[in-house]
Amino acid sequence: MHSIKELRKRLEEIAHLSSILNLLSWDRDVYMPAKGINRRSATIAELSTLIHTKFVSIDNNGLLTVLKKRVDQNKIRGKDAVIINETWRSFNKEKKLPEAFIRKLSETTSKAQDVWVEARKKNDFKLFLPWLTKIVELKRKEANYIGYKVSPYDALIDAFEPGMTAEEAYKVLSDLKDFLIPFIKNIQSTQTKRDPKILLGMYPLEKQIAFNHDVVSKVGFDLEAGRIDKTTHPFETSLHPEDVRLTTRFRENDVLYSLGSTIHEAGHGMYEQGFPVKEVGTPLAEPVSHGIHESQSRMWENVIGKGLPFWKYFYPRLQKEFPKPFKKIPLKTFYQVINNVSPSLIRTEADEVTYNLHIILRFEIEKEMIEGTINLKDLPKIWKTKMKEYFNIDVPTDALGVLQDVHWSAGLIGYFPSYSFGNLYSAQFYFAMKKAIPDIDKKIAKGDFREIKRWLNKNIHAHGKTYSADALVKKVTAEPLNSAYFIDYLKKKYASIAS
Amino acid sequence: MHSIKELRKRLEEIAHLSSILNLLSWDRDVYMPAKGINRRSATIAELSTLIHTKFVSIDNNGLLTVLKKRVDQNKIRGKDAVIINETWRSFNKEKKLPEAFIRKLSETTSKAQDVWVEARKKNDFKLFLPWLTKIVELKRKEANYIGYKVSPYDALIDAFEPGMTAEEAYKVLSDLKDFLIPFIKNIQSTQTKRDPKILLGMYPLEKQIAFNHDVVSKVGFDLEAGRIDKTTHPFETSLHPEDVRLTTRFRENDVLYSLGSTIHEAGHGMYEQGFPVKEVGTPLAEPVSHGIHESQSRMWENVIGKGLPFWKYFYPRLQKEFPKPFKKIPLKTFYQVINNVSPSLIRTEADEVTYNLHIILRFEIEKEMIEGTINLKDLPKIWKTKMKEYFNIDVPTDALGVLQDVHWSAGLIGYFPSYSFGNLYSAQFYFAMKKAIPDIDKKIAKGDFREIKRWLNKNIHAHGKTYSADALVKKVTAEPLNSAYFIDYLKKKYASIAS
Repeated sequence: MHSIKELRKRLEEIAHLSSILNLLSWDRDVYMPAKGINRRSATIAELSTLIHTKFVSIDNNGLLTVLKKRVDQNKIRGKDAVIINETWRSFNKEKKLPEAFIRKLSETTSKAQDVWVEARKKNDFKLFLPWLTKIVELKRKEANYIGYKVSPYDALIDAFEPGMTAEEAYKVLSDLKDFLIPFIKNIQSTQTKRDPKILLGMYPLEKQIAFNHDVVSKVGFDLEAGRIDKTTHPFETSLHPEDVRLTTRFRENDVLYSLGSTIHEAGHGMYEQGFPVKEVGTPLAEPVSHGIHESQSRMWENVIGKGLPFWKYFYPRLQKEFPKPFKKIPLKTFYQVINNVSPSLIRTEADEVTYNLHIILRFEIEKEMIEGTINLKDLPKIWKTKMKEYFNIDVPTDALGVLQDVHWSAGLIGYFPSYSFGNLYSAQFYFAMKKAIPDIDKKIAKGDFREIKRWLNKNIHAHGKTYSADALVKKVTAEPLNSAYFIDYLKKKYASIAS
Repeated sequence: MHSIKELRKRLEEIAHLSSILNLLSWDRDVYMPAKGINRRSATIAELSTLIHTKFVSIDNNGLLTVLKKRVDQNKIRGKDAVIINETWRSFNKEKKLPEAFIRKLSETTSKAQDVWVEARKKNDFKLFLPWLTKIVELKRKEANYIGYKVSPYDALIDAFEPGMTAEEAYKVLSDLKDFLIPFIKNIQSTQTKRDPKILLGMYPLEKQIAFNHDVVSKVGFDLEAGRIDKTTHPFETSLHPEDVRLTTRFRENDVLYSLGSTIHEAGHGMYEQGFPVKEVGTPLAEPVSHGIHESQSRMWENVIGKGLPFWKYFYPRLQKEFPKPFKKIPLKTFYQVINNVSPSLIRTEADEVTYNLHIILRFEIEKEMIEGTINLKDLPKIWKTKMKEYFNIDVPTDALGVLQDVHWSAGLIGYFPSYSFGNLYSAQFYFAMKKAIPDIDKKIAKGDFREIKRWLNKNIHAHGKTYSADALVKKVTAEPLNSAYFIDYLKKKYASIAS
């Protein structure tokens, strides 16, 4: 039977297995006993293979081919057409990669990550170089399997931003760079100097955990359909919209360290909780792209979570829970400190302004890596030169430079731009939302986040993959992705802080 | 290729999926957010079907049939023969059950459990009766599918005690009953009366958790290959020998409530941790039977964990952690109280002596249920009559009587005897172990459990399913299962307590 019902049934089976895969990874990072790791890795590999096998056989009996033809003939439309088109797209991409290649890539990146950890610890780029070389070769091969028109980078970025090309990414990020470099210099010379150490204190873990729970449930993360646990590296993972799990990490002397990452992950989590439950397994309950996903986390973390209205509501609660040191620090000072702009070496610790320059630097390098226009052994030098040029910072060691991120050793080339696209989308979406909810600042300052959540649910979450990122942005904001919104957001925010 | 290697490969794939099934259930009971339950049930059903499908196709290309023939011709021997024979046994049993029947049974028990919860709450046996009737019919059908010589109960008990028959179980348990009824009466009239409430206090959860961890790691449960979490009903589950998880439950006023169940589950856990890692997936790394599994938990919980040498070592630690009330209670008094024998209504709260009478009562009833020699609507009356006869106790309500256990609503008919077999095996094994380690009491009193663990590992755990329960008992103790060891153990223990 060549019916959409049969396709949904096949997708549903895969969805159950995929949700298990997420649980296996979550458990590995959160609760698995140490000695469990060997078999856990094998179980994950086994299940991944099973999912791949099931997915590439989804066209058995020509089911998908027949359905796709009906969509192309306009005999199937609407939601069913979305399911078929998106499944067709993923299917055709996934079946291009031979199983032997997938295994080879997975084995190589698995070993490369161990070497990278070692290389970073020893500050020895040369140790990592042969493995990076292998990975770049494999990723070029992957690009060839998948196919591309202009740059092999097109094929790779497509995994994170479907439909995006290297050229488009380059255009948007170059505009952003041209704005950011002078903007950062200017902020540095004008901003009120504040010592961020004044926010340090002694914050008992139990109380931090309680405060984190309080904040995320207040902003709208459903703790009956999710939970928060402790890990070394924070992440969000979703089994399905009714089981979404966040993790965060804690520093006993810095309550904002965990809070920032928790709000970020809760933004991801609310996106996943917003997918329609009855469509689980289909593209109608899947994220549009990494950039759109990131727009949700970054809107909550930065645009809202580092905004003055947010802290008008939460700062008194923070002061009550942790009178020392916050009782003596006025809200304005607090707000200035948490929005301090300061060029630094490490991406993951960067503020929301300089962060994007870290991304642009990586994007420029990895694009050339894949296009073969730079020599991999020169990476440390190139990194240092760009850091000097963009941030006016000297990079003392490769561990604090080119070796700091896990992405390349994990084979995630083409991923970095999504982080900045997330920032750009978040400002553009927020602008549209503010037009729809004119008193949004007042509502936030009163701790009323219900309308924001409803707006995000209705306009972004509930659609799943119905629209491409491009189409979604046009639908929601009436124009394509435009970095002007983010630029304008930063200008206004930092002008008001400086005044 | 009809090789043992190929069979191992197929079993290994199934083992990964089975370990996932255990993780899914563990997570459901321990950490899953409330709203996750609907899809979790569906995911478990989906994976169970997948495992069943894979297992009943393990003979594809006649692999298993060819290998079994080679074993029967003595061309394959040793460990490989065990793997083939045991897989052959399970395969032939599992393929007898039609998929439609499995689904029907699973749906029926799933609904019946909801009804049972309701019926117990409302103390309304009539509400449960139609569902129990359906289940008994289905279990008779199951017995017919599987086949049996004398009693349909033979086919059901075989799932828990492979090779055991109703008649054998009846013989052993009747002997035990004949001993227990007068023995319990006698203890009651002679034992020193102690109020168990003297052990109550205020025990902070954190400190109880720490004490539980301390005790189980001391007796030999490897916390790097396992963990302990909190649930409503304690259980042990194993993903594989390097990832074994215990759960326990706590009462703030009763530290022994959690400790007893933790030691019990740790006994199960050490059995699973003792299987050979490189044989995971094969019967060589599987438990012999439920009774043998239970022998491990009950040996640790009762024979060792309620013994005087054990508390000679742990009581000072308990007193140190919880000076109130233990500082003022002498070890002898404490030891008498924790070994108090007292007929009571609820099986799960019974002491180690009366416990077995609860089992015998259930065994007698469920055997007749399946053989069709009693009318199901008379169960409450039968229950009450037997409780009066065996314990001299009046059962006030069915909730505290025939409705107290989950087993029948879950379709677990034939399971109860394993609990008592566990007690019998544990005493017989312990007797053999004591001969091998003559100074065992001294070692325990010094907190040195290493030799016990080594002996159990070597003589019981490491074999997996190499021997049947019967053969294992003969190998380890030089005779078949004999209730005299348990009877003798009880006699000596309670004579010494009374003196």
